[in-house]
Amino acid sequence: MSLDNLELISEHACFGGVQRFYKHSSAEIGLPMRFGLFLPPQALAGQAVPLLTYLAGLTCTEETFAIKAGAQRQAAELGLVILTPDTSPRGAGIVGEDHHWEFGVGAGFYLDATEMPWSGHWCMESYIVKELLPGVTAQFGLDGQRLGLFGHSMGGHGALTLALRHPGVFKSVSAFAPISAPTQCPWGHNAFTGYLGQDEGTWAAHDASALMAQQTSAPYANGILIDQGLADKFLVEQLKPELFEAACAQAGQPLTLRRHAGYDHGYYFIQTFMADHLRHHAERLA
Amino acid sequence: MSLDNLELISEHACFGGVQRFYKHSSAEIGLPMRFGLFLPPQALAGQAVPLLTYLAGLTCTEETFAIKAGAQRQAAELGLVILTPDTSPRGAGIVGEDHHWEFGVGAGFYLDATEMPWSGHWCMESYIVKELLPGVTAQFGLDGQRLGLFGHSMGGHGALTLALRHPGVFKSVSAFAPISAPTQCPWGHNAFTGYLGQDEGTWAAHDASALMAQQTSAPYANGILIDQGLADKFLVEQLKPELFEAACAQAGQPLTLRRHAGYDHGYYFIQTFMADHLRHHAERLA
Repeated sequence: MSLDNLELISEHACFGGVQRFYKHSSAEIGLPMRFGLFLPPQALAGQAVPLLTYLAGLTCTEETFAIKAGAQRQAAELGLVILTPDTSPRGAGIVGEDHHWEFGVGAGFYLDATEMPWSGHWCMESYIVKELLPGVTAQFGLDGQRLGLFGHSMGGHGALTLALRHPGVFKSVSAFAPISAPTQCPWGHNAFTGYLGQDEGTWAAHDASALMAQQTSAPYANGILIDQGLADKFLVEQLKPELFEAACAQAGQPLTLRRHAGYDHGYYFIQTFMADHLRHHAERLA
Repeated sequence: MSLDNLELISEHACFGGVQRFYKHSSAEIGLPMRFGLFLPPQALAGQAVPLLTYLAGLTCTEETFAIKAGAQRQAAELGLVILTPDTSPRGAGIVGEDHHWEFGVGAGFYLDATEMPWSGHWCMESYIVKELLPGVTAQFGLDGQRLGLFGHSMGGHGALTLALRHPGVFKSVSAFAPISAPTQCPWGHNAFTGYLGQDEGTWAAHDASALMAQQTSAPYANGILIDQGLADKFLVEQLKPELFEAACAQAGQPLTLRRHAGYDHGYYFIQTFMADHLRHHAERLA
């Protein structure tokens, strides 16, 4: 499987590796999509290295992580490829698609919309799992058996839900300040109503805490890592990590949930704990 | 000396320290100015630590370095405060001030303009040396005897020229891809004509290579560090590090000029070699 019309937009030498940005025609989305790819020196030397995918939060693009997260230094040391998809389709031309920062463009929520007018293009789950990951691993000669997944906020929701909805695909999971129970917060309620419809019965299948609560044994016996800032203004109303924590306890899922006094929701928080996440994944993908 | 109307715009915990952004009323500029300040844990604990000032390049702001350079991790380890001024006055209301990305807003060139209409507000040299540095060291209890200076591109020009024009103020100097001989490149020619006038006789006092060539002994006997990417599209026409290298040789100034195959002009290059620059300064400011 290859990526259609793959086009290199730019590339930048970085820590002995290379940070690239690509564009391709996505069959799942039905539009051109962009992604970032950091290739460490080991990949440039032809070694089959693991692939760690990072899902970004609301309003972000495929560039956000590469610019702000400060991850390339250690990814180069550890030999991790890092893939950063965009956060939604762009250019669909749906009326109002860019009127709200928490819905539509930049807010794909890593699921396949079932409601019109979003159901045509807003298929981020299928795009990432069925198209982008197989395409990138094939195209760049990566080890498709060693895939890790992490993300931030909406992308933390994406990482946890895709990891739980696609058992066996990912070997390591972590998140920064994830939307942990979207059926129980305004961002999730709003997005699920728009993308999945009024029937709340369909929502639990895309809620990390609900998915975890259904497990009869630990889906990631090697542990899940979550970092959360206690000065994060979205913590109480939108993120609710305590619900995911309770679900993990119920399912017997090992979870390291670290709460950090003083840290907020942004990339100054993320970069502070990035090294721990990259080590978490590298150990599990070794 | 204190900074007038100092206002904290935002702050973000980062690697045990804090990344802050401030606004104040600048007497030298005659307008509000913004700056970024990273305070490492040692500064928060009340230790008198060195202050390293970073001057950014064309089109950048006081936020660029904080977001893109990946410096906070090591600055926290080394105990360096990092000050990031803006790159020009903003809001002066001069006709055409934002029509060109290489002149006017975002392009202050770290000098005091003598030509109308810029001479009223475009006084970045006096602003930084006479107002911002004394104000910040006093306000935050920093060690004003341990000041370092570095920068990128236009800010590399700023770092080298301010360090040479103000002997004794700075104890350590380095640069990433500096505009090394602005009297001999289009960016410098254009800026100096606009800010300093047609008389090229006044320009050499703001040209790092010309200033260095006049020295009768090494002004920075502890060495200057410059990193330059060889895939930098501005290298040949605008940057000309070989002219500064020749001037250093003539003056007996120790210079480590490292040329890196494959690296371009941007922050993926800068972050790759940031650790070496921070160590360079920390050793000389110890």
